Amino acid sequence: MSSNTFGKLFSVTTFGESHGPAIGCVIDGCPPGLEIAPEAFRHDLERRATGKSRHTSARREKDEVEILSGVFEGQTTGTPIALLIRNTDARSKDYADIARQFRPGHADYAYWQKYGIRDPRGGGRSSARETTVRVAAAVIAKKWLAQRYGIGIRGFLAQLGPIVPQGFDWNAVEGNAFFWPCAEQVPELEEYMDALRKSGDSVGARVNVVADNVPPGWGGPVYGKLDGELAAALMSINAVKGVEIGDGFASVVQLGSEHRDGMTRDGFLSNHAGGVLGGISTGQQVRASIALKPTSSLRLPARSLDVDGNEIEVVTKGRHDPCVGIRATPIAEAMMALVLMDLALLHRAQCADVGPVRPRISSGDGLD
Amino acid sequence: MSSNTFGKLFSVTTFGESHGPAIGCVIDGCPPGLEIAPEAFRHDLERRATGKSRHTSARREKDEVEILSGVFEGQTTGTPIALLIRNTDARSKDYADIARQFRPGHADYAYWQKYGIRDPRGGGRSSARETTVRVAAAVIAKKWLAQRYGIGIRGFLAQLGPIVPQGFDWNAVEGNAFFWPCAEQVPELEEYMDALRKSGDSVGARVNVVADNVPPGWGGPVYGKLDGELAAALMSINAVKGVEIGDGFASVVQLGSEHRDGMTRDGFLSNHAGGVLGGISTGQQVRASIALKPTSSLRLPARSLDVDGNEIEVVTKGRHDPCVGIRATPIAEAMMALVLMDLALLHRAQCADVGPVRPRISSGDGLD
Amino acid sequence: MSSNTFGKLFSVTTFGESHGPAIGCVIDGCPPGLEIAPEAFRHDLERRATGKSRHTSARREKDEVEILSGVFEGQTTGTPIALLIRNTDARSKDYADIARQFRPGHADYAYWQKYGIRDPRGGGRSSARETTVRVAAAVIAKKWLAQRYGIGIRGFLAQLGPIVPQGFDWNAVEGNAFFWPCAEQVPELEEYMDALRKSGDSVGARVNVVADNVPPGWGGPVYGKLDGELAAALMSINAVKGVEIGDGFASVVQLGSEHRDGMTRDGFLSNHAGGVLGGISTGQQVRASIALKPTSSLRLPARSLDVDGNEIEVVTKGRHDPCVGIRATPIAEAMMALVLMDLALLHRAQCADVGPVRPRISSGDGLD
Amino acid sequence: MSSNTFGKLFSVTTFGESHGPAIGCVIDGCPPGLEIAPEAFRHDLERRATGKSRHTSARREKDEVEILSGVFEGQTTGTPIALLIRNTDARSKDYADIARQFRPGHADYAYWQKYGIRDPRGGGRSSARETTVRVAAAVIAKKWLAQRYGIGIRGFLAQLGPIVPQGFDWNAVEGNAFFWPCAEQVPELEEYMDALRKSGDSVGARVNVVADNVPPGWGGPVYGKLDGELAAALMSINAVKGVEIGDGFASVVQLGSEHRDGMTRDGFLSNHAGGVLGGISTGQQVRASIALKPTSSLRLPARSLDVDGNEIEVVTKGRHDPCVGIRATPIAEAMMALVLMDLALLHRAQCADVGPVRPRISSGDGLD
Repeated sequence: MSSNTFGKLFSVTTFGESHGPAIGCVIDGCPPGLEIAPEAFRHDLERRATGKSRHTSARREKDEVEILSGVFEGQTTGTPIALLIRNTDARSKDYADIARQFRPGHADYAYWQKYGIRDPRGGGRSSARETTVRVAAAVIAKKWLAQRYGIGIRGFLAQLGPIVPQGFDWNAVEGNAFFWPCAEQVPELEEYMDALRKSGDSVGARVNVVADNVPPGWGGPVYGKLDGELAAALMSINAVKGVEIGDGFASVVQLGSEHRDGMTRDGFLSNHAGGVLGGISTGQQVRASIALKPTSSLRLPARSLDVDGNEIEVVTKGRHDPCVGIRATPIAEAMMALVLMDLALLHRAQCADVGPVRPRISSGDGLD
Repeated sequence: MSSNTFGKLFSVTTFGESHGPAIGCVIDGCPPGLEIAPEAFRHDLERRATGKSRHTSARREKDEVEILSGVFEGQTTGTPIALLIRNTDARSKDYADIARQFRPGHADYAYWQKYGIRDPRGGGRSSARETTVRVAAAVIAKKWLAQRYGIGIRGFLAQLGPIVPQGFDWNAVEGNAFFWPCAEQVPELEEYMDALRKSGDSVGARVNVVADNVPPGWGGPVYGKLDGELAAALMSINAVKGVEIGDGFASVVQLGSEHRDGMTRDGFLSNHAGGVLGGISTGQQVRASIALKPTSSLRLPARSLDVDGNEIEVVTKGRHDPCVGIRATPIAEAMMALVLMDLALLHRAQCADVGPVRPRISSGDGLD
Repeated sequence: MSSNTFGKLFSVTTFGESHGPAIGCVIDGCPPGLEIAPEAFRHDLERRATGKSRHTSARREKDEVEILSGVFEGQTTGTPIALLIRNTDARSKDYADIARQFRPGHADYAYWQKYGIRDPRGGGRSSARETTVRVAAAVIAKKWLAQRYGIGIRGFLAQLGPIVPQGFDWNAVEGNAFFWPCAEQVPELEEYMDALRKSGDSVGARVNVVADNVPPGWGGPVYGKLDGELAAALMSINAVKGVEIGDGFASVVQLGSEHRDGMTRDGFLSNHAGGVLGGISTGQQVRASIALKPTSSLRLPARSLDVDGNEIEVVTKGRHDPCVGIRATPIAEAMMALVLMDLALLHRAQCADVGPVRPRISSGDGLD
Repeated sequence: MSSNTFGKLFSVTTFGESHGPAIGCVIDGCPPGLEIAPEAFRHDLERRATGKSRHTSARREKDEVEILSGVFEGQTTGTPIALLIRNTDARSKDYADIARQFRPGHADYAYWQKYGIRDPRGGGRSSARETTVRVAAAVIAKKWLAQRYGIGIRGFLAQLGPIVPQGFDWNAVEGNAFFWPCAEQVPELEEYMDALRKSGDSVGARVNVVADNVPPGWGGPVYGKLDGELAAALMSINAVKGVEIGDGFASVVQLGSEHRDGMTRDGFLSNHAGGVLGGISTGQQVRASIALKPTSSLRLPARSLDVDGNEIEVVTKGRHDPCVGIRATPIAEAMMALVLMDLALLHRAQCADVGPVRPRISSGDGLD
């Protein structure tokens, strides 16, 4: 019910402002007996972190996770797991001058209208800083999904402004700061980003995320659909303006004879569906793609208003990402993990007594 | 929690299978004192109905709504409103031969894997028949939103397979069976659909839906965002594979200086955001667009399996829509109405004490 | 979230007014593959029904249950099960004269203050008529709990005004119209009720309900406790003013050495806890007791107000129960069944991977 | 949904174990603009604290509340308020010897059966230590309820084992360590407690809690009733075994003519209902009473088992309350505050448009 809680059975409640004392979350409903060490969070948090390359915001956070509860002698106990991350590199003075201004394209005006008050420091609650704890919470979900079902979740940057991949290699993805699947293009991306940063502007991006080995049967009709939950989860990421499942908008011009995925004993013949039919997983690879808008915090001036209603020109200094999409890959993976985790628990709640259902076929799309 | 319930405060729980005795819903949380007559449902239900033109399924349902509770002397009482619609034109014999087959592109296999049992008659619960009650429930939401806030919600078919509108006139939309905004193109659409039907194939579509006069401040960080809720709501419609808010995927190639909507005393200078920033409404027109896949029920044969694991060739007879997108406009409107209704109630629950917040500017995008 | 929905995973949403066209419910989350026939509801609905003896309201409802959805070829499919019961013996004229009066001890004034409108016919939504569908929904829960875990739920009238049982025999309970556990006292109860009815007054009662064979581990800390859920469930029954778990209020004067239930390999040495410790079932018999107030609809006049604020004298004619507790036993059983069903599903969602936990001991309290 | 979250709109998610690094909570849904200083929590936390007199556990916690989020420049912003309290006086060695034992009357065995693992230090999650954060969260609720509606919530110890108050004075309640309403009896209570402590035993208690100035109309049919929510909330407090609303179990022997509260222009003539009819507040004083069992941690030996299934004799050393009821008053107040806060928001979500409803009468029971 709470709008700061994600998930029904594996519930993640997050808190914290960008420049407040700390961010964190409470994870409720985690199965007991899962091994979790404080170090487990490091890998994904570093993948998401700013300040690693010149292409992301210069803010450097240590992102050290303190486990406050729910873990005893290295194992989850089934009680709420509280994770705490102190903010250490919050420079609120950077934002002092915009405390009374509404930055176009930002949540400033919307928050002001909703609450009549807002914490302007670093975007407060609307900052992508909040996604740090989503990634942390998802570390637990990813681990359980992998151990229990062999599920693997991974993503990549599928478009950076006008640039699209010229090749595809999963092994390349983690080898560059962009999560780009074609190593040869990395210099091109760096050049593009350098020019963009110099211009003071920003650009949009597309991120794809997939999950392999998701068993058929997860997700439920008609409002708790796997694709519906994914849509909400991915759209909730800062700057996301569009979500596709499977072929997404390409389906608009497809014929039915082309779109539907034939089935054989050896598996599905294609995967236009993106692993979901009727809101329920099919056993195919689950595939989603998201559009991220360009950040609105620019050195380039924009027309706006201040809290007194005066027309002003806004220039954003501070530290910002010229392309938020660059760091979005681990966040998209995190949201897919949280969705799958929740639906896994929901599925077995209702259907644990349904034995192995025949016939079951392989994903069959050659990708997992 | 229930996956057949939509909404937290204005909760719509739907039930019913395509060829079962009835479909219906229970609406809980409706404000009291709203006038609702049984006739109120007719207009939108007819807009959604099949069998009105040769371009949709031949099934003809009367869709007569019986109000079972929650309305006294023509007014809502605040208690649950149960709506019942009997199925009258269900020809289950049409489906007898596919009871043991999995139709590719359909929910058959996924349901089978989830539940170990499925009602094959007309697609059972996975049929778009269920959306009838969404439209009915949304009649109440639309009325309240219009009376209380002057909100208007309307949609149109924005693409039919390869065909895009060559002009735009809201007045044209309700004048043709396609909800198409350019009257001159209607013959072209009919010709296209006739050829498609003759070929035995189907095609995808795009539907746009907008809401005018939504006050700023609705929706909440970070998982109850207006855009996140819209994404879930729209993705939950049968056959939807993609959702965009505002510029959607076009944002991928945009620059920040281009995307962000400047603000003046006279209103916003543009509406790339689609009326949502930080998950909260801005006062701009709320804009969403969805991709609908082509239906998979075709006369053209497809490779598949039966419940015993035998490879078979599936041919779907029955009565089907060659383009489900044609009837999707009122359904998309309905889901937007349900989302806005729910967020309106959630907003005032938390923020009713926040007085009129200054400065408030007009939508300013020339569309409302 | 909806206040007319009970349960998180086995969710029962009820609707309907006492004298409206129908009452009913939608059950979402039921495990698939459970056999349910329309006749299954008859037994418990007759146990709850009015008009069977002169000691309950004279209203005679057929309470025929129509299954509208969620059952295919006699088995639950996992989709929502809608149950419909038409009201057939609603005499709204009986209530015409009190439409503008607030009956003391009734929900009239509270509804009026909340909604500004109320359906006065037969108490509308606040009537115990609503409990009919709870009993119907619980038939499904009881069946699943019995089949899956061997759980048996049963209750009895433990006090009727000043009269307490002088003996205890489960076999006696179903043999009289009072659910009284001591057959010898039935004439005494009848005499008491006859005198009470003649006097125009009503009286309170106590009902006990127990569940046998509930596995240890159900219920969760700290707000989803088994005892907390039971308390809410039982208090939600019309006229209930108190709930006890185990020794309940008797615990106030107990010493710790007396209250705590010792454990041996052969089981628990006593059951003061009522089968719940820390909010989680222990494997002991689950025991609850409720207090029901006397009905307020009396022929005896009472001081009150009308909707215009005039002081009036209220006399209730209509058909009423002189002791609502007499029919409350199956309702209390139903609520316990719904709680256990929901917690069973919640438990296995989180803890399905926890194997058989040793040591496990028997209930040991000599009662199951 | 989460069983560690209380409330639907004013949601309090708590975390933390008795002897873990910290306890805390996240409060979501708080109205913006409420002034909250870190010092605000001190008063109620001290009322609840152990170690203040020899009659409660010797554990001394500083209970310093750190506000991690949701408050900006001393005001709530509408975003989640995270409160953190470090555990400073946790002596886990006291519990080392019982890590493999199940203490009778404790949650040990139930947790073990549920999760297959448990944190034995100080009772872990099942410890009443968790209630500290309920009290902290309720400080915010109490403040809002007082400011917005003039609601006052207060409680007292209504029975200590066999001892009942011989007089009643609200002013006395806060003047002694027992929250006892009759100052003359305090020496008697101290003597009783000293003897009890010396005997190594413990005793039960009863606590009453009331709320004044609750407007009529709060709470909703039929499963979100004010009394139902109170029952769940109060039963969720550690050691509570019974809950009464209004006359509670005394209603069992009452006649209807005696129980129903007459209404006049000057207010209600009595308050047997405890301020709730049909699950909705009436404007009368809201009254609840709870039974608390005696603590089970005793120096006196008890028969039990260890995790290997061996029969053992358990003796609990550590630091414990000989009567948990003594400190339960502020906790009961807290739970009533959280319930009322949540229902206040839920009520205005649905019914904000219902104007002032006439006739409205005073509480009239001479107590507020």
